[in-house]
Amino acid sequence: MARRSVPHRPTIADVAALAGVSKGAVSRAFNGGERISAATIQRIHDAATQLGWVPSAAARAINGAPTQAVGIVVRRPPELLDIDPFFPAFLAGVETVLARHEYATIIRFVEGAKQERACYERMMAERQVDGFLLNDLRRPDFRFRLLSGMGAPAVVVGTPGPSCPYPSVDSDSTPRVRQLIEHLIAMGHRRIAHVTGVPELLHSRARETLWRQTLADHGIEPGPVAVGNFVAAGGAQATRQLLAEPRRPSAIFYGNDVMAVGGMAVLAEHGLRVPEDVAVAGFDDIELASYLTPALSTVHCDYPGLGRAAAEMLLTAIGGTAPSWRVTLPTQVRLRRSTANTG
Amino acid sequence: MARRSVPHRPTIADVAALAGVSKGAVSRAFNGGERISAATIQRIHDAATQLGWVPSAAARAINGAPTQAVGIVVRRPPELLDIDPFFPAFLAGVETVLARHEYATIIRFVEGAKQERACYERMMAERQVDGFLLNDLRRPDFRFRLLSGMGAPAVVVGTPGPSCPYPSVDSDSTPRVRQLIEHLIAMGHRRIAHVTGVPELLHSRARETLWRQTLADHGIEPGPVAVGNFVAAGGAQATRQLLAEPRRPSAIFYGNDVMAVGGMAVLAEHGLRVPEDVAVAGFDDIELASYLTPALSTVHCDYPGLGRAAAEMLLTAIGGTAPSWRVTLPTQVRLRRSTANTG
Repeated sequence: MARRSVPHRPTIADVAALAGVSKGAVSRAFNGGERISAATIQRIHDAATQLGWVPSAAARAINGAPTQAVGIVVRRPPELLDIDPFFPAFLAGVETVLARHEYATIIRFVEGAKQERACYERMMAERQVDGFLLNDLRRPDFRFRLLSGMGAPAVVVGTPGPSCPYPSVDSDSTPRVRQLIEHLIAMGHRRIAHVTGVPELLHSRARETLWRQTLADHGIEPGPVAVGNFVAAGGAQATRQLLAEPRRPSAIFYGNDVMAVGGMAVLAEHGLRVPEDVAVAGFDDIELASYLTPALSTVHCDYPGLGRAAAEMLLTAIGGTAPSWRVTLPTQVRLRRSTANTG
Repeated sequence: MARRSVPHRPTIADVAALAGVSKGAVSRAFNGGERISAATIQRIHDAATQLGWVPSAAARAINGAPTQAVGIVVRRPPELLDIDPFFPAFLAGVETVLARHEYATIIRFVEGAKQERACYERMMAERQVDGFLLNDLRRPDFRFRLLSGMGAPAVVVGTPGPSCPYPSVDSDSTPRVRQLIEHLIAMGHRRIAHVTGVPELLHSRARETLWRQTLADHGIEPGPVAVGNFVAAGGAQATRQLLAEPRRPSAIFYGNDVMAVGGMAVLAEHGLRVPEDVAVAGFDDIELASYLTPALSTVHCDYPGLGRAAAEMLLTAIGGTAPSWRVTLPTQVRLRRSTANTG
């Protein structure tokens, strides 16, 4: 593995010297980060970035030409492709970049951790791919050690923990969800309900937490919560639950736009006007959000941009250069008529 | 290629004998269908189906174990993943079946015919895949001869021409588009406009033709046509054009639902009520169609079902058995309030 087939290519020893640590520490920093502090990991990654060193460089030089494919292993039901607007939009961004470089994507849907692990191992062993995009992070995530141990380049899509040995790209919606809730508060709402997505998913929980915290920061008791599972039918059902409460909410923050559309249909059924009787806000800014009647206030996330950035970073890593380390893409609040009492 | 490693497996000679043709004719029937009539091709395919023979069987037996991957090469801009509801829904169906069989999908977006051809050749030469799903058929389609010449199993998604050497699965919306237009006629509409998708795409042109023919069959002059390119913004822009016509249409058939949503926003801007002033119909039956206000009349296509069927058929072919030859899935008209003058 230490063979230097390309002169002047930086080695693990160069990184260790620059970071002032042992070669073993560099290896561990890219290997799951065991027995090593977050600050040291950061220093080692900074050194690697500065030198343009990636852990897979040696392995790559030995193995020869790239296979020109990138792997995406998804441990969620395949239906999400049809349901969650994130995935097709993200994939469109990924493919835009890969097409330009004549790269393919290998997509595999798996059911559990065991199948997932076997899938990564096989893809690497048979050199089906040159690297991976890692979505749907878990804490802890066994993929970090598994892949870095195999010298596989990868880019994380989402919020990486402190010991994540891979570059990452994320879109930070935290300030924007807060801003959306504060807009509802500014419009005079004091009973603001929430319809959650799939409670098991980190990003669904993150939106609920932000809603709760923002209300708490303003001394407002959170309104009722109902589960909508990120689908329109779930949003409709959750809205029926909320309307059955003794005190009707004056505003509802839905965990995504399609649930908000489902909810608005139920509000119309009940003769309630949006926004005059109930204000409605969503998340995603789907293509149709601005064309609904009323147009839907939401948080705009650039999912194709996230896909493009992730693919660019991965191709950089595959090429043997260290990509940007922690990339965060901005999101925007789109305030439209569904939250504006002054139409 | 003629080595019989598996006893009792049907050979090309068996198929030729049963169909009463030469082995060369069988080969040509699976090889682009040159110098051979459509009726003979059909007879040969019937014989192959009866015997469970597929042209790749011998190649497969020689080459060993399957790679457990299926290829999808797409000669369209990658943005379609984010824009056209067909693709993610279809892919979700494909992945549902493939996940169960622990198969992956290799997706490659290409720009032109040359890149497309090279991509198929490389995927086969390196045995990256066991077979292909063929979308977006062209007439003529060079893939038929290319792939059958390499002995690659494939399943066509869409309407195959008479010389198509592969099994196919399609959803037949012809009677349903007709039914939708006839519903508008029955509601008293005589000036029915159309907003087309992307004029270059076969399915976009097919919907326009059906709209035109149905009106002609009822002695009604077709209303004006505007191009919406299958996106909401395009549907909005096309609707503005239609409303600028000297005689306003009383009904608009949009080539897909998202264009109809864009159009309904513009109608609302102009103070026109749906369906009282202008009736609106779409195509696709997207998740949100029944939750819009008013709910949208449309043609429901089971895209995940199409993906599942295509994947099942391809796995059958890869497994060495002939799948069903020409499969057509039904579609349904969903009549909702956007076309109902009696609310």
